[in-house]
Amino acid sequence: MIPLRQNIASMKGYIPGYQPPDIASWIKLNTNENPYPPSPAVVKAILEELGPDGSALRIYPNASSQKLREAAGELYGFDPSWIIMANGSDEVLNNLIRAFAAEGEEIGYVHPSYSYYGTLAEVQGARVRTFGLTDDFRIAGFPDRYEGKVFFLTTPNAPLGPSFPVEYIDELARRCAGMLVLDETYAEFAESNALELVRRHENVVVTRTLSKSYSLAGMRIGLAIARPEVIAALDKIRDHYNLDRLAQAACVAALRDQAYLAECCRRIRETREWFTAELRSIGYDVIPSQGNYLFASPPDHDGKRVYDGLYARKILVRHFSDPLLAHGMRISIGTREEMEKTLAALKEIG
Amino acid sequence: MIPLRQNIASMKGYIPGYQPPDIASWIKLNTNENPYPPSPAVVKAILEELGPDGSALRIYPNASSQKLREAAGELYGFDPSWIIMANGSDEVLNNLIRAFAAEGEEIGYVHPSYSYYGTLAEVQGARVRTFGLTDDFRIAGFPDRYEGKVFFLTTPNAPLGPSFPVEYIDELARRCAGMLVLDETYAEFAESNALELVRRHENVVVTRTLSKSYSLAGMRIGLAIARPEVIAALDKIRDHYNLDRLAQAACVAALRDQAYLAECCRRIRETREWFTAELRSIGYDVIPSQGNYLFASPPDHDGKRVYDGLYARKILVRHFSDPLLAHGMRISIGTREEMEKTLAALKEIG
Repeated sequence: MIPLRQNIASMKGYIPGYQPPDIASWIKLNTNENPYPPSPAVVKAILEELGPDGSALRIYPNASSQKLREAAGELYGFDPSWIIMANGSDEVLNNLIRAFAAEGEEIGYVHPSYSYYGTLAEVQGARVRTFGLTDDFRIAGFPDRYEGKVFFLTTPNAPLGPSFPVEYIDELARRCAGMLVLDETYAEFAESNALELVRRHENVVVTRTLSKSYSLAGMRIGLAIARPEVIAALDKIRDHYNLDRLAQAACVAALRDQAYLAECCRRIRETREWFTAELRSIGYDVIPSQGNYLFASPPDHDGKRVYDGLYARKILVRHFSDPLLAHGMRISIGTREEMEKTLAALKEIG
Repeated sequence: MIPLRQNIASMKGYIPGYQPPDIASWIKLNTNENPYPPSPAVVKAILEELGPDGSALRIYPNASSQKLREAAGELYGFDPSWIIMANGSDEVLNNLIRAFAAEGEEIGYVHPSYSYYGTLAEVQGARVRTFGLTDDFRIAGFPDRYEGKVFFLTTPNAPLGPSFPVEYIDELARRCAGMLVLDETYAEFAESNALELVRRHENVVVTRTLSKSYSLAGMRIGLAIARPEVIAALDKIRDHYNLDRLAQAACVAALRDQAYLAECCRRIRETREWFTAELRSIGYDVIPSQGNYLFASPPDHDGKRVYDGLYARKILVRHFSDPLLAHGMRISIGTREEMEKTLAALKEIG
């Protein structure tokens, strides 16, 4: 008998979006990856770090990812002591729970958003409370004083698309007795973000990732921005060498090439707006999105039927069996050409 | 007031070995890195994965690191279901505590060994019990039935050097009510290892790393071998994309080039034996080592004095202020040339 903790024995693991093995033959719009390659500066930086014989790889990386904190600090206008780097923002979400919520204590989040918060809480043995959304895109039944240890707010919301207004998030921060974590995975595609609230409230943490807007999902690079006391606590919890050397090189180069980032995001937003209009013209309901994806429902509100039709044509989008979401699909924004093919397929499927 | 968990607020973080910023001007023998570059196959695999424009990096990595599990399974003679990959073996040590030891429950380890086990327990809020070593290199006072949830045994022991005999570990496995984790970070430098015990006892886990023998400290790749039920639990806990694409490519290539590994390890062992004999000839006490390092004390048993003398000559070794270890230093085995210079410096320091 293997003496597992009960919460681990009874929990289900998180299932990430499907990655087809024959990926090149698909139009892959299911995990909100960026259709464009990363900045050429990223490739250059990786090659430089690698060198002719890879001998840099025999040495441990910089433990604190110091250059990355400096580059992110400069970009966002914070001292590096306000920044921590992570092996994907998932790592720092995990460590935020470990820092603030003990076994049996509560964390909360909006459903639908990123259900992985719940998985992370289960690993910790923390309790989970979810809140729905109202028709005007506010949190339903959020108490005047929320006593949970951490509340996670995905903004822009995935899979639905809208951002929460900064004034509303500001109000939420005041209502949270514990920490308010703003998961801004998709911020670079949005018209606004809530980063300024980190300065205004000591209980606000913002997380960002290089997976989406910087085209580096394959490199696992995320970060959090918070008060130095919060960062210091997270530094105690994280693995002391959490980012490898090539990821560190890639990150600095990516953060410094803001012109490339801006152009990628501009193209994706442009395609998103075009695709939104086209879908509406064929009778789809589309929620206005601030991310690099959109949530769309066919006229008959049978998301699974259309998902299957796309799948049969080797176009992969995301369908959720959750009753709140089963009527639609989340479709990542690929290249204009990919979205034209997807649109043609949707017309064919009807 | 930031509402941190009390165990996090009160704990100190782990301090990894010092990495000098002007690293090229040092002989760096303080963190047991390999003096040789990784296999040329590693560089080739990274370049292939990167491609001309890095476009593979925009896509999430394989979530389970499946090819790595297969390569490791083939190498060690286990089905891939017995293997999990980690972002450095530190990640899986962390997750083993999370799988088996709840807040307030006990984990144990030998002191001196890897104090990071204690840090990981503090993050979890678990209790820590350490055991000393007897003169004949057995665990002092280990109970007939150890009731702690996890016991970590570093074998070969670092910083001291010897391995524990397999028959002795076999006996320990029977005496552990919880899990026995064999941290075999240095196994490839040793004459024997205890991997067979994973088959014999359902409570035994073996961890390995590519940081030392495979010269990939900079890439953060580790693994654990255990029964599929244990692996399945660890899979629920780990980040779902814990290894990035370039680390995955590097790992498969490294594991498949066993000829290169064997030659690196042979050279390091040869240098270790030569250096051990030379140190003894100048009056040092040297514990026979099975790792890529050795623990040596100068004739006056003042480890700090000699450490400082080496430091002044830009040779970096590891000195521990712990009273059990302050009389000596842990010296990583570099190239023959580096060890000749170190020996000359030691003679000069006297």
